[in-house]
Amino acid sequence: MSWIERKRPTRLERRIELPDYEATRGFLDQLAEVSEQQGIYPDTSFGRTYVNLTLYAEGEGEDLGEGVRRFALAVDRLLDAAP
Amino acid sequence: MSWIERKRPTRLERRIELPDYEATRGFLDQLAEVSEQQGIYPDTSFGRTYVNLTLYAEGEGEDLGEGVRRFALAVDRLLDAAP
Repeated sequence: MSWIERKRPTRLERRIELPDYEATRGFLDQLAEVSEQQGIYPDTSFGRTYVNLTLYAEGEGEDLGEGVRRFALAVDRLLDAAP
Repeated sequence: MSWIERKRPTRLERRIELPDYEATRGFLDQLAEVSEQQGIYPDTSFGRTYVNLTLYAEGEGEDLGEGVRRFALAVDRLLDAAP
């Protein structure tokens, strides 16, 4: 997976490049479905052809938590499935 | 309007708080329509209940440009029309 794990606070970050605005919108729509299914809402930054995601650890410590890892894998699957 | 104008580079910023994720998604969908109509794609950051927008000046100088001002007003109208 292409996430970068960072500390203080513990988080996962991933930058996604997309070919055009339509693809960006499509990805954001799919991401919203995953958020609603899993109850996890990443900090999301986007412009016309990129999306940056930050997933913060669920607790205070250095462990990301099961939910965050599951969300990151779901995003990876979305991107693997993209044309 | 509730935009803050900043310099170096010249830009407009606005933070929008929303009551829940559904409202955030609805706003982002409306914003996408304005982007497609006007061909302007702000840098957008969002989480479950907020959206931050940054509109960069179209040229190199200190003037924001007509297009950016028109986009900002369209966003204001969206928010004024929201329930």
